[in-house]
Amino acid sequence: MKELTKSLKINSSRLWSALQTMASVGPGLAGGNNRQALTDADAEGRKLLEKWCLNAGLKVSVDEMGNMFAVRKGLSDLEAPVYFGSHLDTQPTGGKYDGVLGVLAGLEIVQTLNDLNIWTKHPLVLVNWTNEEGTRFPPPMMGSGVFSGQYSKDWAYSSLDQTGKTFGEELRRIDWVGSEKVGARKMKAFFELHIEQGPILEEARIDVGVVVKGQGASWLQLTLIGQESHSGSTPMSIRRDAGLGLAQITQLVNNIAVEYRPDGVGTIGKCDFYPNSPNIIAGKVIFVVDLRSPCLSSLNAMVEKFKKNSYVIAEDLGLEITIEEIGHFKPVDFDRSCIDIVRNAAKRLGYSHKDMVSGAGHDAFWISQVAPTAMIMCPCVGGLSHNEAEEITQEWAIAGTNVLLHAVLDTAEIGNPLFS
Amino acid sequence: MKELTKSLKINSSRLWSALQTMASVGPGLAGGNNRQALTDADAEGRKLLEKWCLNAGLKVSVDEMGNMFAVRKGLSDLEAPVYFGSHLDTQPTGGKYDGVLGVLAGLEIVQTLNDLNIWTKHPLVLVNWTNEEGTRFPPPMMGSGVFSGQYSKDWAYSSLDQTGKTFGEELRRIDWVGSEKVGARKMKAFFELHIEQGPILEEARIDVGVVVKGQGASWLQLTLIGQESHSGSTPMSIRRDAGLGLAQITQLVNNIAVEYRPDGVGTIGKCDFYPNSPNIIAGKVIFVVDLRSPCLSSLNAMVEKFKKNSYVIAEDLGLEITIEEIGHFKPVDFDRSCIDIVRNAAKRLGYSHKDMVSGAGHDAFWISQVAPTAMIMCPCVGGLSHNEAEEITQEWAIAGTNVLLHAVLDTAEIGNPLFS
Repeated sequence: MKELTKSLKINSSRLWSALQTMASVGPGLAGGNNRQALTDADAEGRKLLEKWCLNAGLKVSVDEMGNMFAVRKGLSDLEAPVYFGSHLDTQPTGGKYDGVLGVLAGLEIVQTLNDLNIWTKHPLVLVNWTNEEGTRFPPPMMGSGVFSGQYSKDWAYSSLDQTGKTFGEELRRIDWVGSEKVGARKMKAFFELHIEQGPILEEARIDVGVVVKGQGASWLQLTLIGQESHSGSTPMSIRRDAGLGLAQITQLVNNIAVEYRPDGVGTIGKCDFYPNSPNIIAGKVIFVVDLRSPCLSSLNAMVEKFKKNSYVIAEDLGLEITIEEIGHFKPVDFDRSCIDIVRNAAKRLGYSHKDMVSGAGHDAFWISQVAPTAMIMCPCVGGLSHNEAEEITQEWAIAGTNVLLHAVLDTAEIGNPLFS
Repeated sequence: MKELTKSLKINSSRLWSALQTMASVGPGLAGGNNRQALTDADAEGRKLLEKWCLNAGLKVSVDEMGNMFAVRKGLSDLEAPVYFGSHLDTQPTGGKYDGVLGVLAGLEIVQTLNDLNIWTKHPLVLVNWTNEEGTRFPPPMMGSGVFSGQYSKDWAYSSLDQTGKTFGEELRRIDWVGSEKVGARKMKAFFELHIEQGPILEEARIDVGVVVKGQGASWLQLTLIGQESHSGSTPMSIRRDAGLGLAQITQLVNNIAVEYRPDGVGTIGKCDFYPNSPNIIAGKVIFVVDLRSPCLSSLNAMVEKFKKNSYVIAEDLGLEITIEEIGHFKPVDFDRSCIDIVRNAAKRLGYSHKDMVSGAGHDAFWISQVAPTAMIMCPCVGGLSHNEAEEITQEWAIAGTNVLLHAVLDTAEIGNPLFS
């Protein structure tokens, strides 16, 4: 059998065209996308992917979480398949590439293999994981989380959006509940190509990130309860202002993250005031604190320090405080041999590359718990993501997809003599 | 003509019963009310008041702002009427007495005069001002503001609620647009009874507050624009986090208010994060800063200091900032002779009383620009208001209403010989 060579490449313009066509589904207001999980736009995006998969000769099946699996037969169907993919759902003001690139790159490599009549020993499976973003239905990475046994299906089904609808009823409404039991699939490996969502690769002018680790994260939902009262006639001395508590805790989060630089980060991005009226002192503020580090002991220390100091702030301001951990993601070490395969693919193709830590969470984090897994990263402009202005160059997308193609072929083993 | 005597009093149980009946219209979730301006509940409250007024023999008319005027004829209809009243609209999580007490106390004094067959030389007019709270349609004190020429009717009509409906269309929808031109009424005087919404009277165990001044206020709407980006993969060093800007500006507001204690106060009660997602750094935060002082030079100094330091905070954090003054209420000096009438009424009736400053804004503030005006304050439990748990005692309501009765009679002059 012939070695994989630098000349084996994807069809760049077909990939780019698919990305732009998918971006027309669930357009945002500012050039990006709003294709949140289980909306009509999500359903439309799934339909389009399904059509493309069927056209490429893949067999599409769906599990009870709505995870989509598009199978390309291998020469030996007894072998465990090689999986690859990501997610089509977006943030409410999301970009065109976060998740989408990994799915459509997977479709492109299958189409490339079809074009070249290359068949692999192991079957190939392209995956679209349901609800990676978790913005509408928390937590994020839900489809892959249930698949890998982190959460039960029933628990995921009961997740509520802000209008009180459940994940389960919305999945049924858009008609994407499959009959397949979740998680009953054996994988030889899983590869996920994803945009970096950070500035490192672009700043270093590196084509491809070889992801060796994933950051751990702790998501803490805080409720501060003070006393609603009139903003004009309540003297400063007797106030119990939940908004002031938020302010001091925001500064605390920032201080802790800065202390744990460069790897540690901390954010309060979701926050709601109650009753949210200009002339009423906030009686309640509910917000989510997102703390991350690639080192478990650092993450634990950040969380510990945060909790301790938050309680002090609340007490000083006369506020009730509750802290609920709504998400905990341990730092992830990806599979050494999968990492080597990705690194070798980048090397073979002549791309500049760099080992790196993923700051964002990804479906690959959960899948790494049940299968050998690695990730490939593609730079993005200005490190910007979760933003409609998110952008990548065609060249970056092509490089990442070519590396994915080679990593998948290396793992799935080219089997047909035609190519030898 | 006989002097007013201590024995001339309102019907306490009728007053209390009316307050509780009105509280059944637009009930809140926690024992208070949600009867925001121009909602169906507001319309229902207006209907109930109208019915009561008609039963009491009053003639009800409505102006183009929906302000309701219920007239009791005087012995000489050439004389300028004496006005009194307040507002029936509430905060989204409001109490049963804020505004409502002033309206229903006005109704009660008319009913008392009917019972006693007392007629005044000057006509009496009970007013329900539209949209005092301004929570749904900013600014607050809108009906009285247009009446007194602070705002144009058209400008008020164009105020938008959060769903994009205008004040004008909602006023038409609930069918409370009158034909009377706004502001075309001459007043001999205006008296407003209102709960204190602060802790001073209750703490000092005083029955009645004689309001001599009203706090001035500046409402500044701030928009901070940073950069939406991923909370996991954006290093702390390159963030432009609008939420951190909010935090530091909240602390600034608090510091300035504390510096200007005891009169100065400062609050951020309304705040919205965008896109409001746990794993996205806030790209935009919009919030309203409410600064108040009874002294104009102090208020101006607070605003100046606030603006100067906000710009510095924004610059330090790499945020764009815009500051728009959405409300400016100068401190108010009430009419000396009206104040004397209120103070004398309290004295005559044997109530403990105290001159005070109103911390909250009221319709009387605007009316004081076009007519001799004073306010009477009633204590409230724990100083709590703009809260469903807002509470007053029957005794406090009765004392305030009796003072209103005497102040109105003193001003309108008892005219019928029957009472002499």
